[in-house]
Amino acid sequence: MRCRTCGSKAVINMPQHHLALCKEHYLEWLPAQTQRDIVKFKMFERSDRILVAVSGGKDSLALWDLLWQLGYQTEGLYINLGIDSGIAYSQRSGEFAQAFASDRGLKLITIDLVSNYRETLPQMAARTQRGRGKPCSVCGLVKRHIINHVSVQGNYSVLATGHNLDDEAAILLANTLDWSLEHLSRSQPVLQAAPGFARKVKPFCRIYERESAAYSILRGITFMPDECPYAFGSKQLYFKTHLNDWEGKMPGVKLRFYTNYLEALDAGAFPARQESIAKLGTQRCPSCGQPTTTGGQCAFCLLVNKS
Amino acid sequence: MRCRTCGSKAVINMPQHHLALCKEHYLEWLPAQTQRDIVKFKMFERSDRILVAVSGGKDSLALWDLLWQLGYQTEGLYINLGIDSGIAYSQRSGEFAQAFASDRGLKLITIDLVSNYRETLPQMAARTQRGRGKPCSVCGLVKRHIINHVSVQGNYSVLATGHNLDDEAAILLANTLDWSLEHLSRSQPVLQAAPGFARKVKPFCRIYERESAAYSILRGITFMPDECPYAFGSKQLYFKTHLNDWEGKMPGVKLRFYTNYLEALDAGAFPARQESIAKLGTQRCPSCGQPTTTGGQCAFCLLVNKS
Repeated sequence: MRCRTCGSKAVINMPQHHLALCKEHYLEWLPAQTQRDIVKFKMFERSDRILVAVSGGKDSLALWDLLWQLGYQTEGLYINLGIDSGIAYSQRSGEFAQAFASDRGLKLITIDLVSNYRETLPQMAARTQRGRGKPCSVCGLVKRHIINHVSVQGNYSVLATGHNLDDEAAILLANTLDWSLEHLSRSQPVLQAAPGFARKVKPFCRIYERESAAYSILRGITFMPDECPYAFGSKQLYFKTHLNDWEGKMPGVKLRFYTNYLEALDAGAFPARQESIAKLGTQRCPSCGQPTTTGGQCAFCLLVNKS
Repeated sequence: MRCRTCGSKAVINMPQHHLALCKEHYLEWLPAQTQRDIVKFKMFERSDRILVAVSGGKDSLALWDLLWQLGYQTEGLYINLGIDSGIAYSQRSGEFAQAFASDRGLKLITIDLVSNYRETLPQMAARTQRGRGKPCSVCGLVKRHIINHVSVQGNYSVLATGHNLDDEAAILLANTLDWSLEHLSRSQPVLQAAPGFARKVKPFCRIYERESAAYSILRGITFMPDECPYAFGSKQLYFKTHLNDWEGKMPGVKLRFYTNYLEALDAGAFPARQESIAKLGTQRCPSCGQPTTTGGQCAFCLLVNKS
């Protein structure tokens, strides 16, 4: 397999794009692809201050590296959730994130759950109904709250996450099986800023997981190699397996699934269901000041104040 | 496993409904379920003359039997497509359909492709671009045309097909992966009559394939046991396999997928794209008189007149 650009030995073949590239040209191609989507979906500009939520894994560090390479103003946020499971998962992940930032002279904000809220995520989750069995739902709530808090307090105009195409396609498939119109109207590359919320963007939304992994490896980024110990057996991983199966038989199916969904949204499928977002602008949690739909304490404050 | 109604030995367990039933109560339950959907989706009434399209397989014969049991006015239509593939597929299928009708004193109309159009389906398909490799697309075109012709000529108010939930969910999944709004707005249990078209209904749209198969077997219906030789390797069978995999892990997922889709349609997703149907009312094929979108000969007449 030869690089389409220069004819030297290719390091990656992407049947979905009918494209093979050598290391040099792959490391040009992926940032160019990402930049195209940043412009296409009007994610941000040079003047924006971007907070990149990093987990220490391949996707978020690849994204931060790439945005830094492209010359955007970025700072990182790492949340230490206190997940251990015998592999010191959170601690090691944080070390990868910190080493990455230090190597590049970039600023990383670290929020430690135990220091701030006296409990690890699994401890918080164990106290709740929604956290029984698996803490993933509580984890989402906690991360959303903290990321939002930091992005608003720090006056970042944009919050970027490393969700890749495989993530988005798996979530889209799960939401489609439920035909949840609320979720289907919101699974977009950009969620616009609202009072109390920074704009949320996913620059890798059309980048395959193996493409961002290849970028990390070829750029020499050292990242946390393990999946979160709670991810095993999750619905998302399950659907990813099926999507990978389809991709093997029908190259490009993941990209078409997601891209055609975005076109369907533009064409008026799922007329916007913005009621809850509109509500969010008017009511604040009396405890933390973040927007809430209930008028009372937000779900995060209810969680941490119950201990 | 015991029958929920009478406590005797169950012959079928349906985890998706948390229900096990004996033969007697299953043969009451399935018609009652189907009748509920006939009413819910306003498919037809006692006064309607219903043409049931039968293939000789388990679904269409189960449907015809069940509608006959329920006291509806039904006649059958079998199209002999001349598919052989060494197993005399069409001939044998037709014999099952004819035996079924004769046993019950029901009228079966048989249309023979070779007698009427001088060619078998595989011969027709081999002459066309869309039939290269597999004749399935041409088969759909031919069957739609003939079914439509017979239903209009015979003044049937309703055309019923044996599509079951597994068929509908697999088609829905394929259409969703493409986000084809035209198809997504039309995958409904009822397509209303339009000038030149009878109302089309799918009374088994929420009946699992194994439920209709069990009905056929328990009612002693003898049906064509083989799949169409061209079905192997089709996308629809491929997606059925995945849906069955999901169903095993998440009982009821097929039914929720399809039912929630119908609710999403009702809630305004996929605003109706009726342009092509509206057009159909105004233009007729000069050769056969059936509605067409092009103004010229319809696709069927182009196909058969080209030989």
